[in-house]
Amino acid sequence: MQSFEIDKSDLQRIKTALEGDDAGLEVVLQEYHASEIAILFEKLPQEDKERIINLLPVDEASEVLSEMTEEAHPEELLLNLDPEKRSDIVEELDYDDATDILSQLEEHEQHEILQDIDQEDAHNIRALLKYDEDTAGGIMNSEIIKVNINLNKMQALDEVIRQSEEMEEFYTIYVVDDADILQGIVSIKSIIKARHDARVSDLVIRDFVYVKAELDQEDVASLISQYNLTTIPVVDDNMKLLGRVTVDDIIDVMEQESTEDILKISGVSEDEELSGNWKEAVKSRLPWLIVNLGTAFLAASVIRHFSDVEERLPVIVAYLSIIGGMGGNAATQALAVTVRRISLSDLSDRQAYTTVFKEFLVGLINGAFNGLIVLVFACLYDENPLLGVVLFLAMTGNLVVAGLTGAGIPLILKRVGIDPAVASSIIITTFTDCIGFLLPLWLASSLLL
Amino acid sequence: MQSFEIDKSDLQRIKTALEGDDAGLEVVLQEYHASEIAILFEKLPQEDKERIINLLPVDEASEVLSEMTEEAHPEELLLNLDPEKRSDIVEELDYDDATDILSQLEEHEQHEILQDIDQEDAHNIRALLKYDEDTAGGIMNSEIIKVNINLNKMQALDEVIRQSEEMEEFYTIYVVDDADILQGIVSIKSIIKARHDARVSDLVIRDFVYVKAELDQEDVASLISQYNLTTIPVVDDNMKLLGRVTVDDIIDVMEQESTEDILKISGVSEDEELSGNWKEAVKSRLPWLIVNLGTAFLAASVIRHFSDVEERLPVIVAYLSIIGGMGGNAATQALAVTVRRISLSDLSDRQAYTTVFKEFLVGLINGAFNGLIVLVFACLYDENPLLGVVLFLAMTGNLVVAGLTGAGIPLILKRVGIDPAVASSIIITTFTDCIGFLLPLWLASSLLL
Repeated sequence: MQSFEIDKSDLQRIKTALEGDDAGLEVVLQEYHASEIAILFEKLPQEDKERIINLLPVDEASEVLSEMTEEAHPEELLLNLDPEKRSDIVEELDYDDATDILSQLEEHEQHEILQDIDQEDAHNIRALLKYDEDTAGGIMNSEIIKVNINLNKMQALDEVIRQSEEMEEFYTIYVVDDADILQGIVSIKSIIKARHDARVSDLVIRDFVYVKAELDQEDVASLISQYNLTTIPVVDDNMKLLGRVTVDDIIDVMEQESTEDILKISGVSEDEELSGNWKEAVKSRLPWLIVNLGTAFLAASVIRHFSDVEERLPVIVAYLSIIGGMGGNAATQALAVTVRRISLSDLSDRQAYTTVFKEFLVGLINGAFNGLIVLVFACLYDENPLLGVVLFLAMTGNLVVAGLTGAGIPLILKRVGIDPAVASSIIITTFTDCIGFLLPLWLASSLLL
Repeated sequence: MQSFEIDKSDLQRIKTALEGDDAGLEVVLQEYHASEIAILFEKLPQEDKERIINLLPVDEASEVLSEMTEEAHPEELLLNLDPEKRSDIVEELDYDDATDILSQLEEHEQHEILQDIDQEDAHNIRALLKYDEDTAGGIMNSEIIKVNINLNKMQALDEVIRQSEEMEEFYTIYVVDDADILQGIVSIKSIIKARHDARVSDLVIRDFVYVKAELDQEDVASLISQYNLTTIPVVDDNMKLLGRVTVDDIIDVMEQESTEDILKISGVSEDEELSGNWKEAVKSRLPWLIVNLGTAFLAASVIRHFSDVEERLPVIVAYLSIIGGMGGNAATQALAVTVRRISLSDLSDRQAYTTVFKEFLVGLINGAFNGLIVLVFACLYDENPLLGVVLFLAMTGNLVVAGLTGAGIPLILKRVGIDPAVASSIIITTFTDCIGFLLPLWLASSLLL
């Protein structure tokens, strides 16, 4: 099987089947994996999605819902289903997936759904709903395999097999004491390979990595990535075992965090849904643009301040946009490299200084090189070598400022505890616009006029 | 254990220990996990790293090397080790990790290292070295657990336990026929739970996801993410089983792809190492800046073309930078959202049209809103309502162009098979600069003068 990409033939098949009767539609649906149906759902209207979910067996329907992206709003689909079908699906969902979906609903809607389902399931989902969705508790799954530390090998194996009935995959078995306090981990491999009279307490590994439920999901992802884990146990303040986070949940977290980085650095609110409508996009971007408008007026005031220079040397106006724009782009380059570097690993003070110094050097060299091109152009085209020298100095100076701010501002923000990606290109380019206009105008007024 | 962050005390401890004798250093090293030592290595000079690697037991040393980031250049460390120690470490490394490290060396260096190690290991590593490092073959691990489809339950279990001796984790067991052709998968759980007289052929699941060795790693990552897999088998064109890709390798791939997206969109060559030196940074960014300089001259030529407008209405000059800059930032916003969206999922033609239309609307509204602010300012400050109207129209027009190009250009590039992230902000802002200067100058010359 190769990667599933929706092509028109798949969509056409489903649409044709949707025009026919349920029996025919069921046959077509059987050929698709739940995650494929979830993708097809992005292209289907609400009523067709409901009809398909109603036709699918409960386990398949719940898998489709859990595979739908947050942006496809599985919670709306769920809410519109017939209450009985809905309860069956919610009971079938993994607790963490059910929690993810329900957390998008209003409290009274959550209540309405949870009161109809098995009370143990409802209790577990309610417990998960109280964690912030961006924390370890919010992404953990509370269905885990755990054995008491006092069992012997055969009891442990029986217990593992019994508990694994409901689980698709098990990798690590958690070892707890009578009070459910996490004592360590044990692998199924070591249980199978152990002598018959071995006890769990002989096999338990007590040196292991765990997280508290409140830990930010980004930190959970770094831990899983750093220690090459496939799962990580989640505990409360008393080391009581609450659940586990699996690596496949982390993949979603990482996609989300990368998206947020890219959006923030580009001056888009991190909450904007990529496939959201125009209203959300305006709400997310207009505030940044208004901030930018304010800073643009600031940069423009530099030009107004030197209006006599423009009158006496009108040709400089065309160069202002070049020097300002080049500074903005050089700053964006330095910013992207620095923000991404910070987001992948913490930098020591020494590394921070080195980074800023590197960007200073890069700005100096790139500035001098581009400044030289502008100098040559001013000599040949405008026949004004002195103007060329002014522009050379201004370009070099502005690209140095670009490097220093592009690297320095996110590093400073990180030090004072503000998300460095907030130092979006919109903020940084204010500096390079102001300096990019100020330097040539001020140099020209001092040296040429 | 909470997330490991290098703080000064850790680094100071290691540095103090490095001043002392080997015995004391060994004691300190025992307290750190291999991945922690790999992080500490980023702050230590080459000779200290070599001393530490030489002190560590072979299994620990090889894990440190495999945990070092590509940018920390584990291959240089390896190359400088004493040949005997080096051979032991390479033999201990997982094949995929050994391949990753060796692939960074020259061919004669690879040969020198491989000729000294166990010939079977060398053979397997050579086989992996021939795959492009960005493909399934390049990231796969060839150490897998596989059982012949004709075994019975107890034989299969014995075989799994035997093969698992050398593996840290096993999730899925691959089922092959006598010619090593992949027939399906079987879980350890189903083997343990099967009746004693069951055969592998009764337990095998024949509906499974696999990839060809040549598949791009980004597609492997999407498959693993889409189907919530922890491993995926890699086969050749004849369905012969070559190895598997595990989800922890995918995490590295995803980090790398996100970094490349962020860098490209910001006009930085995707090969620039985040912690690279200034020479690499200049090499990676100068070409883009020179392209930008060319396009900036183009935008500046618009200003030159309308030099009579500036002479007769000098106040317009300050507004040009505002309208051009706002367009650039609005385009960057649209670009970030669109590029990220394309990189997470393919868009249908219909979705592509909807996206461009959405960005058109967003540009219209954000443009009109900001245009209105500028209009008010021009009325109050410059007492020139007609100029205000010109600026209002220009701002609105430029932000519409920003939305159309920010969304449209990456979508068009994707359609013709070019990486959409290449539509960096540098390229897109050329449009918004040119249009941002052209619109107010042309409108002013038509309507005002």
